[in-house]
Amino acid sequence: MMHVPPAYPGMREEEADTPALIVDLDAFEANLDCMAALIAPTGARLRAHAKTHKSPVIAHWQRQRGAVGQCVQKVAEAEVLAWGGIDNILVTNQVVGTRKLARFVALAGMAEFAICVDDIRQIEALESMAADAGRRVGVLVEIDVGMNRCGVAPGAPAVLLAQRIARSKHLIFKGLQAYHGAAQHLRTPDARETAIGAAAALTVRTVDALREQGLQCDIVGGAGTGTFEYELQSGIYTEIQAGSYCFMDADYARNHGGRAAGFQHALFILGTVMSQTRDGAAVVDVGLKAVATDSGLPLVANREGVLFAGASDEHGTLRWDAGAYGQAVSYGEKLRLIPGHCDPTVDRYDWYVGVRQGRVEAVWPVAARGGTY
Amino acid sequence: MMHVPPAYPGMREEEADTPALIVDLDAFEANLDCMAALIAPTGARLRAHAKTHKSPVIAHWQRQRGAVGQCVQKVAEAEVLAWGGIDNILVTNQVVGTRKLARFVALAGMAEFAICVDDIRQIEALESMAADAGRRVGVLVEIDVGMNRCGVAPGAPAVLLAQRIARSKHLIFKGLQAYHGAAQHLRTPDARETAIGAAAALTVRTVDALREQGLQCDIVGGAGTGTFEYELQSGIYTEIQAGSYCFMDADYARNHGGRAAGFQHALFILGTVMSQTRDGAAVVDVGLKAVATDSGLPLVANREGVLFAGASDEHGTLRWDAGAYGQAVSYGEKLRLIPGHCDPTVDRYDWYVGVRQGRVEAVWPVAARGGTY
Repeated sequence: MMHVPPAYPGMREEEADTPALIVDLDAFEANLDCMAALIAPTGARLRAHAKTHKSPVIAHWQRQRGAVGQCVQKVAEAEVLAWGGIDNILVTNQVVGTRKLARFVALAGMAEFAICVDDIRQIEALESMAADAGRRVGVLVEIDVGMNRCGVAPGAPAVLLAQRIARSKHLIFKGLQAYHGAAQHLRTPDARETAIGAAAALTVRTVDALREQGLQCDIVGGAGTGTFEYELQSGIYTEIQAGSYCFMDADYARNHGGRAAGFQHALFILGTVMSQTRDGAAVVDVGLKAVATDSGLPLVANREGVLFAGASDEHGTLRWDAGAYGQAVSYGEKLRLIPGHCDPTVDRYDWYVGVRQGRVEAVWPVAARGGTY
Repeated sequence: MMHVPPAYPGMREEEADTPALIVDLDAFEANLDCMAALIAPTGARLRAHAKTHKSPVIAHWQRQRGAVGQCVQKVAEAEVLAWGGIDNILVTNQVVGTRKLARFVALAGMAEFAICVDDIRQIEALESMAADAGRRVGVLVEIDVGMNRCGVAPGAPAVLLAQRIARSKHLIFKGLQAYHGAAQHLRTPDARETAIGAAAALTVRTVDALREQGLQCDIVGGAGTGTFEYELQSGIYTEIQAGSYCFMDADYARNHGGRAAGFQHALFILGTVMSQTRDGAAVVDVGLKAVATDSGLPLVANREGVLFAGASDEHGTLRWDAGAYGQAVSYGEKLRLIPGHCDPTVDRYDWYVGVRQGRVEAVWPVAARGGTY
């Protein structure tokens, strides 16, 4: 079941029930515009990643500001986007298992779909499922460009898979997936540029090897918010798959001195100070179930000297130097927190509360929340 | 929205779509029986904590095996339990904010409810709300017995709050909340026994001080799966608020050599090996959105030598010594993982898949999932 929304349009933000997932709509729109302006002159396309936002509503906003389509990681996300009218979707991931592939192929009548593979057995299963359904499905070969996670080795192993796809009557070879996820969170611009330089070189080599076999890559996809400027520089990537740029989070901000390429924090958790019995400490109603801590604890917005010092399941502890800051926060007050990691934080909520200049303007379902399968 | 279930009754477990939240029903029932047997001779009552399971179905199972009622942390959890027919609920937490208190008081017509306070302003707000609604609400004073989170200091400050409650026409003083959450995860039995010994001493002192003022504690509540045997030994606690015992998790198991007081692992994440392109490594479809990692990574069940080595949003990396274990896991196979921390893991799912001896027997909604407000 879904819970009732924590707020309604027309309310003031501070009337929202907490914890609430707040989208600052001015900052969000500015982030979409900023990305569009950065990509437009390069000739590359933006295929925004819905694993961040899990919402057809936000996907439509991105489409209106230039995105050619969406990426997803899971079939459940693809289902929710397709049902919500998104007509061009790439699953940037392997899908393994008969039931999942059946669900994926069933969607192919609703929109333009493509999927990534890194194993001949996955290609065979996909082909069999597409044949049964009488559909043709686009396929990208994922190559490992330095993340050591999914993907075949660049060069000859990727060409073998691509040839197998191209021979199939039910599959369409669309190109390469060449995403370096680990590079997104490297701490310095130099480290990120070096990692993406190496990834791009492996990608160029594979694109060339494919061309020698007569195989063209319509899509060479990859990049995230932390590195996309380097993928664009390389000239080899045709599609940028950034997701976090629309919201930003504290982890990305740490790498960019509070800003990444002009992007602003647009995502916040609104919390309430629910207990204040000791000097220099208070408890907010935001714990592990309300904010992801895998990439660090949240930051307290607009409140100098106040630290989010620790989280348990339903509580967050704030601390400050009572000598320097006195009663820095007070009982019952509502505070904005900046999540450490936006994607899994969004996934904990049923509703976005869109706020503009202090007023609730929109309440949107996080429709694909929990869509892990 | 809620996603379709990943399995249906009658299926074999390995047919479930993954990631799936599996409850091993034999182990689950054994855990409920084990707790009932441990508590029965002591004269204390079990008020099981629904923050673990978030399900009226499981609450009813616990009731049938001796629990007198349920605890919750949030009003949204209380709502879902009350709507599901649970008639005795304690909110073991502070509730701050007009909207939340209105929701809480509105429930008081459906069931017997009590709530915790640690601030005079919370008592005044609750009283005003109860008066408006024409209801009487049970109230416990939470004392800080060593966790340094919520709760007033034991002794005189608690007595002051209790007297204020007792004077109200709309509130009923029910007793003390004396939970030491931090003690649950101390690594040695000695450390846990010492912490709970100190908590019990503070609680005894406060109960005595209340009695001197003519105030009786019907409920002295606290304890969790990691320490409840010590709270029972103390003789001062009348209600045990354990939650995790019904499922167990890897973090509790680490403190008890794989078993805590006879409890078994009953909660698993079923995952699929979705990519296997390197020796001694594979990728499962279980990442940060499918398993909580705040208390450590999950363990791989029944698979010697295979380590869950890292998680990103939608992927988990398995590693093993390929020299010693060869092809320890294979492409497409389904594996059970033991979550590091059960409560926030459950909160990521819409559905429980109840399995007995390899067959899916039940599919239950995690009805209060996401009920953080």
